[in-house]
Amino acid sequence: MQVPPDRNHVPSVRPTRRNMLVAGAGLALAGPATAETLADIPDRAPGAPLSGHSERSSYVKLSRIPEAGPGMRHVDPADAINSKAPLQELVGTITPSDLHYERSHSGVPDIDPDVHRLLVHGQVERPLVLSLDDLKALPSITRTVFIECTGNGWENWKAADPTLTVQNTHGLVSNNEWTGVPLRILVDLVGRSSGSTWMLAEGGDGAGVARSIPLTDEIIDEAFVAYGQNGEPLRPAHGFPIRLVTPGLEGNLHIKWLRRLKFGDRPWMTRWETARYTQLQANGTARQFQLRMETNSVITSPSGTMKIKPGRNLIRGLAWSGHGRISRVEVSTDAATTWKECRLVGQALTKAQVRFELPWDWDGRPTKIVSRSTDDAGHIQPDRATLIAQTGTNALFHYNAQQTWSIDLSGEVHNVLD
Amino acid sequence: MQVPPDRNHVPSVRPTRRNMLVAGAGLALAGPATAETLADIPDRAPGAPLSGHSERSSYVKLSRIPEAGPGMRHVDPADAINSKAPLQELVGTITPSDLHYERSHSGVPDIDPDVHRLLVHGQVERPLVLSLDDLKALPSITRTVFIECTGNGWENWKAADPTLTVQNTHGLVSNNEWTGVPLRILVDLVGRSSGSTWMLAEGGDGAGVARSIPLTDEIIDEAFVAYGQNGEPLRPAHGFPIRLVTPGLEGNLHIKWLRRLKFGDRPWMTRWETARYTQLQANGTARQFQLRMETNSVITSPSGTMKIKPGRNLIRGLAWSGHGRISRVEVSTDAATTWKECRLVGQALTKAQVRFELPWDWDGRPTKIVSRSTDDAGHIQPDRATLIAQTGTNALFHYNAQQTWSIDLSGEVHNVLD
Repeated sequence: MQVPPDRNHVPSVRPTRRNMLVAGAGLALAGPATAETLADIPDRAPGAPLSGHSERSSYVKLSRIPEAGPGMRHVDPADAINSKAPLQELVGTITPSDLHYERSHSGVPDIDPDVHRLLVHGQVERPLVLSLDDLKALPSITRTVFIECTGNGWENWKAADPTLTVQNTHGLVSNNEWTGVPLRILVDLVGRSSGSTWMLAEGGDGAGVARSIPLTDEIIDEAFVAYGQNGEPLRPAHGFPIRLVTPGLEGNLHIKWLRRLKFGDRPWMTRWETARYTQLQANGTARQFQLRMETNSVITSPSGTMKIKPGRNLIRGLAWSGHGRISRVEVSTDAATTWKECRLVGQALTKAQVRFELPWDWDGRPTKIVSRSTDDAGHIQPDRATLIAQTGTNALFHYNAQQTWSIDLSGEVHNVLD
Repeated sequence: MQVPPDRNHVPSVRPTRRNMLVAGAGLALAGPATAETLADIPDRAPGAPLSGHSERSSYVKLSRIPEAGPGMRHVDPADAINSKAPLQELVGTITPSDLHYERSHSGVPDIDPDVHRLLVHGQVERPLVLSLDDLKALPSITRTVFIECTGNGWENWKAADPTLTVQNTHGLVSNNEWTGVPLRILVDLVGRSSGSTWMLAEGGDGAGVARSIPLTDEIIDEAFVAYGQNGEPLRPAHGFPIRLVTPGLEGNLHIKWLRRLKFGDRPWMTRWETARYTQLQANGTARQFQLRMETNSVITSPSGTMKIKPGRNLIRGLAWSGHGRISRVEVSTDAATTWKECRLVGQALTKAQVRFELPWDWDGRPTKIVSRSTDDAGHIQPDRATLIAQTGTNALFHYNAQQTWSIDLSGEVHNVLD
C-alpha cells in the first residue's frame, strides 16, 4: 500500500491489534520471556573510543563483486568491467556510496577538482568554461534516483545459471541521493540556440565515453550536473568531481568525470552509440538510442543461493522504472498463477527505487516466487516469454523480464528462467 | 520555494532564461570558451581497476571531530564523549553513515548480531524475546529523519568563540534513512496493557543508557526499532545491531544497542532522566523530560573560519524541527534587519533535515548573516535574546537560537552571538 504524499515515510497503515497478530503469526520467535530472561541476554560491555569515522561492524560483510561481463563472473579485478551491488544484503532504499554498482571502460581516474573544468559550447550564444566552484555557486537540486547499467539482467537473456545470486542477476542498479546543477540552468547560462536539439556529454576517463542525448523537455527538466552523492562529494568511481545525471535513462548516459557538454542539431554518432550501446534485434538489425530504462523489479529476499525454512518469511524486493513512479508491485508465490499486491515501504519517488514487502507463510512444498511491477505511466514488467516475443534473444541490453526464483524441498532458492 | 508533494524532488521552478541570467550574474566563471579551450582542459587518463568498494577521492578530506564537551574541544580520542559531523563539507540532505555524529557514554560495543536479543516485557500479555532475524521477518518502515544530541549548540550558550566552525557549533545533528520495525507492531505483538503509558528503553552499552518514554499516539505511531541505516546494517557507533528511533525527540532517546523495552504506568526515573539529561533553569530548578527537539537551522556555507570574496556567493544551510516539517527558512544578510525567504531544495520531510539556498551578492562591506526556520506546527526559531529571556543561561541543552556569522572586511567568517 502506497503512502499518501502528505504523510510520506510515515506508515500509512496504522496496524490494528488483529492485523499485527497476523503479522507476527508463524514467526519463529526466540521465545517468551520469563522472570529470568534478562539474565540470559548477553551482558553490557564497554566499547571502543570515538573516532573520526564510524566504520562497519566486523560482523557485517558487504562487498560488490567485480565481474568481467556475461558468462565471465569470477575474474582478476584488473580485468573487471563492472562491480555489482550486493542487493541481497541491503535494506531500505539508499545504496551506500561505496557499494553503488560501478561500470567503467578504462578504470577510475582520480581527478584534481581544482584543475578540472567543464566546457559548455556548440550551438550556443556564450560558450563557457566552468570550474567546480562555479558550479557550486549556482542553484542546486537534490534528488534520489536509480542509475542502472543497460546490461543489468544480461545473465538471464539466454540460459539460467542456478548458482547466480541476485547480486549477479541484478546488481548493476543502485539508488543514491544526488546533488548538482539543473541542466536547464546551464542551458540558459550559455544561451542554447533554439535549433540545438541534441547535447553531447563527454567524460574525462581514458576511454572518453561520449553520448548524444536528445534535448526533450523531460530531459532538460530532469538532468543535472552532480557534484554530490549521498551527502558528500562524488566517489571517483562515480565521476568525481562531476557527473551528468539523467534520471530514468541508461547508466552510460550518466556521463562520469564530465568534461564537456556540446549543443547541436543532430546526434554525434559516437562509437558508444553506433557500436557499443546498440541493441541487436531478432531480425539482425541494430536499434540505436534505446535510452530509457524499463519498468523492473526483483525479489531480493529470499533470492538465489539463500535457504529458507517453512513458516513465516518476509518477501522483500526492489522496484524501479525509468518511465516514472512505481505504482504497484505484485508477487506470486505459486509460479505466476496467482498474484498478491505488496505493500510499498515509504513513498515511491519518480525514477527511484522503492522497497516492497509481502509476508508469506511457506508450506514447505517446492514452488516458485516472482515479482512484477507497474509504473504510473501504465507500463507493466513483462514475463520472460512476452519480452522474448518482442525482442528475440539477440539482445544484450534492456532485459527487464520478471525474475523467478525456485524453491526446492530443502528450502534452497535458485535462479530459473520462468 | 518548496516543491509540491506530487512532484517531489523535481525542481519546482522551471527557470526562465531571465531568472537564470540572474542566477549566473556575478559568478566568477572560469572563463568564456574559445576554439582552443578544449585543448586547455586537463586531458583524459586511464584509471584504477574496479574493486569491491568505491572509496573516497584522495582529494576529499572528510572527518568528524572527536571532542570532550563544552569548552574542551581538542582531546585524545579515548577521552572524547562525542564526535561531530562535518556540516561545512556536506551537500544534499543525507549524512554519510561514517560521518553521522556520535555520542556515547562508555564507548562503542561491537555486538554479535546472532547472539543479541531484544526483551519486550513489563505490563504486557505476552512478554517476548526477539532475535534480529525475528525483527527482520516483521513488516518494516523506511524513513529519513534527523537525530540530534540535546547538547547540540551548547558551545554558544555563554560566550562566542570566534574560532568555531559550524562543525563545532552544530555538528551534533545528522540525517539518515533508517529502516526497522514500527513500535506499534511490537506493542501489539506483546499485548501492551491499556494502563501502560510509559516505555523503558535500555541500551547494551557498558553505561546501560536507559530512558523512559511517554507512549503518546504520536510516539507509538512514529517510533521504530531500526536495523538499517542508509541502506545497510547499522554501524556499531550507531547501535548495531538495533537501535530505537524516536523521530523528533532528543538523541539520547534513540537508544543504541537496544536490549530491552519494558512497559509500565510511570517513568522509571533512571539516572539519565534525573541527573544527566535534565535542564537547569534560570530559577535553579531542573526541568525533566524536555524530550522534543526544537525548530532549528544553521547556515553551513559561508560559516565559521571560511573566507569569501565579494560578488556572487550561494548561501546554503540546513533546517530541521522535532515538531514536524520545515515550512519556511529566511536568511538575513544585514544582521537580522531584513529577511529574505530561501528556496528549500527538494521536499521537506517531517522531522528530517532540509537544505536551503539563497544566492547573495556580497558588496565587500563587513556584515552579519543569520538564518531562521519555521515549521508546519508554527514554531519559529528564536533569536538568542528571546531564547535567553525564556530559559536563562543555566541551561546546557536545547540551544536552538539563530546562529549568526560575522563577515569582516577581508571576507573572513566568524562565530558571534548576535
